[in-house]
Amino acid sequence: MSRLVMKFGGTSVANIERIRNVALHVKREAEAGNQVAVVVSAMAGKTDELVAWCSEAAPLHNGPEYDAVVASGEQVTAGLLAIVLEEIGIPARSWQGWQIPILTTDAHGSARIESIDGGEIVRRMERYGEVAVVAGFQGMHKETGRLTTLGRGGSDTSAVAVAAAIHAERCDIYTDVDGVYTTDPRIVPRAKRMERIAFEEMLEMASLGAKVLQVRSVELAMVYKVPTYVRSSFDDPAAPGAGTLICSEEDIVEQPVVSGIAFSRDEAQITLRRVADKPGVAAGIFGPLAEANINVDMIIQVVSDDTTTTDLTFTVGTADYERARNILESRRGQIGYADMQGQTEVVKVSAIGIGMRSHAGVAARAFRALAEKGINIRAITTSEIKFSVLIDEAYTELAVRTLHSLYGLDRAA
Amino acid sequence: MSRLVMKFGGTSVANIERIRNVALHVKREAEAGNQVAVVVSAMAGKTDELVAWCSEAAPLHNGPEYDAVVASGEQVTAGLLAIVLEEIGIPARSWQGWQIPILTTDAHGSARIESIDGGEIVRRMERYGEVAVVAGFQGMHKETGRLTTLGRGGSDTSAVAVAAAIHAERCDIYTDVDGVYTTDPRIVPRAKRMERIAFEEMLEMASLGAKVLQVRSVELAMVYKVPTYVRSSFDDPAAPGAGTLICSEEDIVEQPVVSGIAFSRDEAQITLRRVADKPGVAAGIFGPLAEANINVDMIIQVVSDDTTTTDLTFTVGTADYERARNILESRRGQIGYADMQGQTEVVKVSAIGIGMRSHAGVAARAFRALAEKGINIRAITTSEIKFSVLIDEAYTELAVRTLHSLYGLDRAA
Repeated sequence: MSRLVMKFGGTSVANIERIRNVALHVKREAEAGNQVAVVVSAMAGKTDELVAWCSEAAPLHNGPEYDAVVASGEQVTAGLLAIVLEEIGIPARSWQGWQIPILTTDAHGSARIESIDGGEIVRRMERYGEVAVVAGFQGMHKETGRLTTLGRGGSDTSAVAVAAAIHAERCDIYTDVDGVYTTDPRIVPRAKRMERIAFEEMLEMASLGAKVLQVRSVELAMVYKVPTYVRSSFDDPAAPGAGTLICSEEDIVEQPVVSGIAFSRDEAQITLRRVADKPGVAAGIFGPLAEANINVDMIIQVVSDDTTTTDLTFTVGTADYERARNILESRRGQIGYADMQGQTEVVKVSAIGIGMRSHAGVAARAFRALAEKGINIRAITTSEIKFSVLIDEAYTELAVRTLHSLYGLDRAA
Repeated sequence: MSRLVMKFGGTSVANIERIRNVALHVKREAEAGNQVAVVVSAMAGKTDELVAWCSEAAPLHNGPEYDAVVASGEQVTAGLLAIVLEEIGIPARSWQGWQIPILTTDAHGSARIESIDGGEIVRRMERYGEVAVVAGFQGMHKETGRLTTLGRGGSDTSAVAVAAAIHAERCDIYTDVDGVYTTDPRIVPRAKRMERIAFEEMLEMASLGAKVLQVRSVELAMVYKVPTYVRSSFDDPAAPGAGTLICSEEDIVEQPVVSGIAFSRDEAQITLRRVADKPGVAAGIFGPLAEANINVDMIIQVVSDDTTTTDLTFTVGTADYERARNILESRRGQIGYADMQGQTEVVKVSAIGIGMRSHAGVAARAFRALAEKGINIRAITTSEIKFSVLIDEAYTELAVRTLHSLYGLDRAA
């Protein structure tokens, strides 16, 4: 007997018929003797409807009220799934975030979970064999008692956090794909589903653009060592197929040098020309951006023709691009630069693999291969288990396919 | 300065535009220096949508889960109205039933409020001038901590209960009509809006078929002596018209003998022919109906030709009619009757007025007037401040108009 968390996203619970299908997946696990907690998202489209009402009500709506409105979607799904489970003979009850409680920070709209009391859920699993159906995406602020939400995709995080709190052996994330792929199969048809991927690799994949899981959920899974299994809710509930297990690297026997290729179009490049090359100038540029909550990612500095100045290039998320330019424009006098240039049609392509730690020259091979295809690299960042290159967006598919083949990730035809 | 509760129903908050209009009503009262709590229903149609999902999920759904799903509608409206109020400069925050808390019995789907802690709401009114926006229709079971709902129209009850809890001077029920009428104006165009009506009269009006307020809300208003003002949310928020004040009878100067005429088509008649006229037979009939939670209303017993038996006629709600017949059919042997007859095309017409206490012969005038119109009376019940007659449904309009004129309720043409 195991204790499991099963998480189902919005498309998996889009209507009552699909909720019935979800119930069959839960039934399979419960009847196999497992203790089960299920975490659900809002029915597909419902969160968008609620968000649209908030935006119509006021362009800059009040955070706590936004959360009170938006959290209602998951509450509905949790109740409906509990009804269906009871109907097919599986004892179940729904739990809203505040009932457990799931306590969070007060960062309304993007709160972080601080603690979950799993005691009562476990007690009822053991005493009544009851399935706990937990509303994802939501919690309660620990001091004010007001509802909070965890940000888009937050139900993944809820699921992993609940799994940690009830000491589950595994967290199964049911989604509309059957696992994590070596890269996006829409771009590389020969991408393969991975059997296993290490937490660290998955964290990089998610951070660098793979959309299968919320970054925060992978962080939590890594910290609490919750084996997390990504699988398809559209499989036959009686005979589901395999997915991808995200686990500790010790549990992965064969470690390729590169496990996957991720890419993100959500990048914009800003270049400041002829910045005075003197101490404190970087602080003068990046300090105001940090204060405005703008994350700066890649940074490169090139000494210009004139040796007393330098050219500074860096990237920000596309959503922050205009705001970042305005801030820098308004501080042009203090910073002192000759010209500001920008480019939003760029993409960051990354290769991730824990095997890089023990293999030298992995990135160098990539730079060569990309150069051979005539792809110009605008910026590079590297870390222990990944490297990223910033290139023109037009070359996205070519670059991803090139790297995917280069590191031997293509499925046999 | 007064403390007020304002309640808005589903059609008044059907979309953001109407919620904005509601906010202007609230603004008017807040800017006049009043401390305001607002109670809101779900947006029109939302509760029906949620109920339909529950029914699709399972024909006999689990009560606590039904409540968890259905209570979400009011939560959404409360958050949206708080957003709009803040947007127009009125400090506001939303409250869900469990946050206040509003504690109820565990009769899921039709729970009764047991207590409301108004302390924090009042504290915030006094300290911050904050408007409390309360989700109607919902509460929390005092022991399990699960959500409960109060039954259809329950937001009226929430409003009156909140008014009692925060010691409000008045509870304003904003609805889609501009007050309580002497009878349904769709049937009697010359029906008049009452300026005032006593709690006891309103309770009878609501119990006997007038749909303007939930019966339970009037009971509460009477018990806690909360003056309750029924008025239109579609009035110009800047210059609202008058409505109907429900108040203590001492506050009504001119008391007519009959204040209003109500009618209910939700009646069905059952007649048992030749029931043995012996002790205990009534218990044998009405006991099993009571056990099945079937309310029996009017009862008449007529000795039949044969003096050892009697004919027994009584009424039940139309929803219980088939079930009542089945119960009586299955006990035919024990009860001992010759024949069972039934009739669903009947209507109960009632005249209500606290003035009846001090005037004799009020009902007798009605029986005469109805007889003159050729209307056959099937059953009669009377109490201190009302009488009701059961007649063929086809005569509804004629009977209502006849009584409305008879007691001088017609508006001058």
